[in-house]
Amino acid sequence: MKPCFDRIAVLGLGLLGGSVALASKQRGLAKCVAGGVRRPAALEAAVARGIVDEGGSFEDAVRGANLVVLATPVFAMVDLVRTIAPHLQEGALVTDVGSVKAGVAEALPGLLPRGVHYVGAHPMAGSHLSGLDHARGDLFDGAPCVVIEGAPEAARDRVSVFWTDLGARVLPRDAATHDGEVAWMSHIPHILAFAFAGALKAAPPGADEVAGSGFHDFTRIAHSHPELWGDILTSNRKAIAAPLQSVAESLAELGRAIETGDAEIVERWLAQARAALSLASPPPAGNDITRRVRTAHSRGLNASPGSAISAAEVGDPIDPNE
Amino acid sequence: MKPCFDRIAVLGLGLLGGSVALASKQRGLAKCVAGGVRRPAALEAAVARGIVDEGGSFEDAVRGANLVVLATPVFAMVDLVRTIAPHLQEGALVTDVGSVKAGVAEALPGLLPRGVHYVGAHPMAGSHLSGLDHARGDLFDGAPCVVIEGAPEAARDRVSVFWTDLGARVLPRDAATHDGEVAWMSHIPHILAFAFAGALKAAPPGADEVAGSGFHDFTRIAHSHPELWGDILTSNRKAIAAPLQSVAESLAELGRAIETGDAEIVERWLAQARAALSLASPPPAGNDITRRVRTAHSRGLNASPGSAISAAEVGDPIDPNE
Repeated sequence: MKPCFDRIAVLGLGLLGGSVALASKQRGLAKCVAGGVRRPAALEAAVARGIVDEGGSFEDAVRGANLVVLATPVFAMVDLVRTIAPHLQEGALVTDVGSVKAGVAEALPGLLPRGVHYVGAHPMAGSHLSGLDHARGDLFDGAPCVVIEGAPEAARDRVSVFWTDLGARVLPRDAATHDGEVAWMSHIPHILAFAFAGALKAAPPGADEVAGSGFHDFTRIAHSHPELWGDILTSNRKAIAAPLQSVAESLAELGRAIETGDAEIVERWLAQARAALSLASPPPAGNDITRRVRTAHSRGLNASPGSAISAAEVGDPIDPNE
Repeated sequence: MKPCFDRIAVLGLGLLGGSVALASKQRGLAKCVAGGVRRPAALEAAVARGIVDEGGSFEDAVRGANLVVLATPVFAMVDLVRTIAPHLQEGALVTDVGSVKAGVAEALPGLLPRGVHYVGAHPMAGSHLSGLDHARGDLFDGAPCVVIEGAPEAARDRVSVFWTDLGARVLPRDAATHDGEVAWMSHIPHILAFAFAGALKAAPPGADEVAGSGFHDFTRIAHSHPELWGDILTSNRKAIAAPLQSVAESLAELGRAIETGDAEIVERWLAQARAALSLASPPPAGNDITRRVRTAHSRGLNASPGSAISAAEVGDPIDPNE
């Protein structure tokens, strides 16, 4: 019952585009997977590695394609669609991997020829790494993938099945809801990690030697690509404003609790914070070294709020527990 | 050339105490490893699991011990040492696993009988998990362990060898330097993660569904134990104040950059932040799913600033890289 695309065109062969192409080939989702690139050198590497069957310019890649996947940065998508629009065949579907949706959801449909539909998507499977070298056919396995509502149902269904076939867990959202949710769950964590990284220049020399696994996990996302994230954060600045304000207030409040010097006041504050987190995301099992369960957890298999493990079930009683 | 202790007493059998005891037994560092506990039930479990050879009350455990490891929360250590001091044998060494050092480094030596030396230690091998159930004999493998200066050299050397024998990488520091460094590298990340967790109650219902691996890594430390962390953060509040101020300013600055809506301004800000981070901690290799290199990285094998991999070597060029 899988959709059979004669030709899938993936435009932009970085981590996400390369992984979409590779996963499509490995799972036999199309007779031909074509890569569209700006620089020919990138295409040679992708063909040599078996990530795409063939390709060329963006215009070349989309000719005859039934499905086009936009995998460039968000800021480049409107121009990209203007470029390819005259070459899209009737009935083609266009999807994407962009991290912010309201702007493109508004702009792109009007740029497409009659009979071509855009169904926005956002697989939550990025990495602090980028580039074709890190592309993987299993990148989307178990990852949440938001599929944006608004296009005709048949188009949305085919695009949803495509992302499901790539291994993702499809979540339907409208564009504004998506942008608000990722502001909280992805953009604010990136902002906090980057803000901490930016402050580190004031840390005493040698402090890095005492960094443990907590530090490395916490800061990993601040190794993400500045150009990509400059684009994402400014594109979504309206949805980011309120949660950023909430977090700054929360930080100030916790700071004041610590200043009291009363450990019980701080403990109560931390306990309510941990409870709020456990509703959104159950604590990972396993430990720092083995991470046995972490992988499954990171791949999006976390439970819904209703089934969240309560904080008290994991890690308590206090260390030491004699 | 290993130090041979006739008897090691570990007081408090949580994650860290249990792991010290287990690692000491597995590596043959003592003829007998005794556990000291407040509640007898905890001891039965530890003996049954082979984590300690025997034990009893804190006082019972330390009798005849050449090495005593304090593994209770920091706030309990002064009272604990008052309790055990009359039962310590001449020549015994006392070390600990506490996360904050200035207070205990000042208080404990004066409480000990003549001929008994305290050498503070802090293995950076905690976890958001706690309790004896998670104790592991390899918890300290490759982990940084700060050993506090101040005690006579012979005592310090023996304690340093003990931690090295447990698998840790010993870092000598004075107490104030330690507290300043962990404020930056451990306590501020915990504060930011907890502050974010506390703010999450304002996130829209359902937002948790879009959380990806970045969210889970970033928030893992906010699943840590509130009582333990209430103790740590208030104990170290003086060293925390300045870095907390720096981070709040950094966050406000990044927020203002985002508000401009100019992606290049944000990109420049993020790039300098990432560069500061890369000096302190090279970017983890591998990717979100495999985490092949993460484990080694998390175990403290990160390079010193001089050998840090430049950000440009990892993850560039931008996704997509065509």
